[in-house]
Amino acid sequence: MKFLVTGGAGCIGSVLTEKLLEDGHRVVVFDNFSSGKTEHIKRISEDIKIVEGDILNFENIRQAVDGVDAVFHLAANPDIKFQEGMSTDKDLKQNTIGTYNVLEAMRQKCVSSIVFSSTSAIYGEVGTKIISENHAPLNPISLYGASKLACEALISSFCHMFGMQGWIFRFGNVVGSRSRVKGTTVLHDFISKLRNNPTELEILGNGQQRKSYIYADDCVNGMLVGFSKARDTLNIFNLSSGDDITVNDIAKIVISKLCLKNVKLIYTGGDRGWLGDVPRFNLDVSKIKALGWTPKHNSRQAIDIALDQILETGQI
Amino acid sequence: MKFLVTGGAGCIGSVLTEKLLEDGHRVVVFDNFSSGKTEHIKRISEDIKIVEGDILNFENIRQAVDGVDAVFHLAANPDIKFQEGMSTDKDLKQNTIGTYNVLEAMRQKCVSSIVFSSTSAIYGEVGTKIISENHAPLNPISLYGASKLACEALISSFCHMFGMQGWIFRFGNVVGSRSRVKGTTVLHDFISKLRNNPTELEILGNGQQRKSYIYADDCVNGMLVGFSKARDTLNIFNLSSGDDITVNDIAKIVISKLCLKNVKLIYTGGDRGWLGDVPRFNLDVSKIKALGWTPKHNSRQAIDIALDQILETGQI
Repeated sequence: MKFLVTGGAGCIGSVLTEKLLEDGHRVVVFDNFSSGKTEHIKRISEDIKIVEGDILNFENIRQAVDGVDAVFHLAANPDIKFQEGMSTDKDLKQNTIGTYNVLEAMRQKCVSSIVFSSTSAIYGEVGTKIISENHAPLNPISLYGASKLACEALISSFCHMFGMQGWIFRFGNVVGSRSRVKGTTVLHDFISKLRNNPTELEILGNGQQRKSYIYADDCVNGMLVGFSKARDTLNIFNLSSGDDITVNDIAKIVISKLCLKNVKLIYTGGDRGWLGDVPRFNLDVSKIKALGWTPKHNSRQAIDIALDQILETGQI
Repeated sequence: MKFLVTGGAGCIGSVLTEKLLEDGHRVVVFDNFSSGKTEHIKRISEDIKIVEGDILNFENIRQAVDGVDAVFHLAANPDIKFQEGMSTDKDLKQNTIGTYNVLEAMRQKCVSSIVFSSTSAIYGEVGTKIISENHAPLNPISLYGASKLACEALISSFCHMFGMQGWIFRFGNVVGSRSRVKGTTVLHDFISKLRNNPTELEILGNGQQRKSYIYADDCVNGMLVGFSKARDTLNIFNLSSGDDITVNDIAKIVISKLCLKNVKLIYTGGDRGWLGDVPRFNLDVSKIKALGWTPKHNSRQAIDIALDQILETGQI
């Protein structure tokens, strides 16, 4: 089959593209290279078609979807963190309006299958409950989460109105060897702070935030299992490792990997790291597991292996 | 208090504006008069401030929210019906992006209370189940429903991130004396067809569609009860009469009101009227009732009284 992968040069998209190639498919990577990188797809660049384009440019994406069998739509603003002074419409544009453009382009070009990277952030603040796909209410507390819920709603309506079929995966925190250096992932935050000052580490919040992580390769495998086996008009899956880990534990792992000792931990305080941060979440992944998928790594192992790879490739 | 009512010249907004005036408040009506009408607010035009503006013009709405205590945001594309050849981004623009503009304008001008007109269409196709506010999943089957769910998500995130407070009302089908003449409400559709040809009536679908209606005045009272009594960061209520009525029954009422007999009913067939139509829904309204609100009219009475008023005012 021939697939379009938007955001195909990103942390998850590039791993997905490699896997699709391995499975014998043809792949067009569509990326604006704002957070995606050419080096992520360098190794496979001769085996794929690369289109530098932006989903906010309708003509770009309309041309790119022409003739493909399905679209893996991963292009998005990848950074959930909102900071004072930032524009509040970044997620609306890059996620919601961008996804509308992808859907409308698909409709015009008669491409009927869309696989979408959603997020646990659509659930908002749920407390200690392990969240199933049918959790209600859906009250996102971040602009990022709101924009992804809007994307899901658009996908649902296009699928039901225009004979399309959708696979929506609500990711936990995805980590991998190609995790973004820019932006604000916890691993890069801790590594760069400790490189600057190996005697202390500032931790956003109280360190007791507890979240579910998934390794990028597990995430990609989960998407492909769901895509190949689920056959409803709209197929929605949580996708994470099934357990969780605290920020304090992640700090300990990073400190240990960097061979540091007696690092003083300093907390900015409060129960969360930033505006729109959810203090804790864990996703019930029994629905995707029932289709035969099992993650190879739990949250701790995902952190551990991603960290090894990040340090090895010298991405900080 | 001083309120801004976007869509204040519309079917519901104008009734709301009158009620707010009666209760001793000051009101600014903000409307682009695309479906709203000056005649709806003519009677009270000296008691209110009228701003002709569009929520898609950010500067328009930014100026309008300045200095108000709360915003009743009702401006929207009112027509759920999508027809082949129509643009697919009408709801995205007029509802989702418009609502973002209202929220961002409020954030900039430190206005923290928003009351929003959402819709049962966010629930999608639920079957015979009576739908509570915590129904899951939320899989809208219309572009209109998708756009309103996106609005709800935006409101949720703005409330949680920027210290705002929100009241979201998911309306059933609202009918009133000022129901739109343009567009595609079932009452106007039936009346105009029967005026053209009193011997037969074409009914979209099989006539067995069964939906919940609410009279505009009941709807406005429900919003005001919820707004005055609910105090959470985000307050979500279904708002309808609590029962339902079939399209066939509505046809019988219209035929009877027009004093016609032996009208031949012709069905276009299928279980729904149009692309994105939900064949049946009924909303559980126990949550808003628990705050002391009771609708004065059930679905049949709402249809009956709205029909009398429409025929009396000669709006067809």
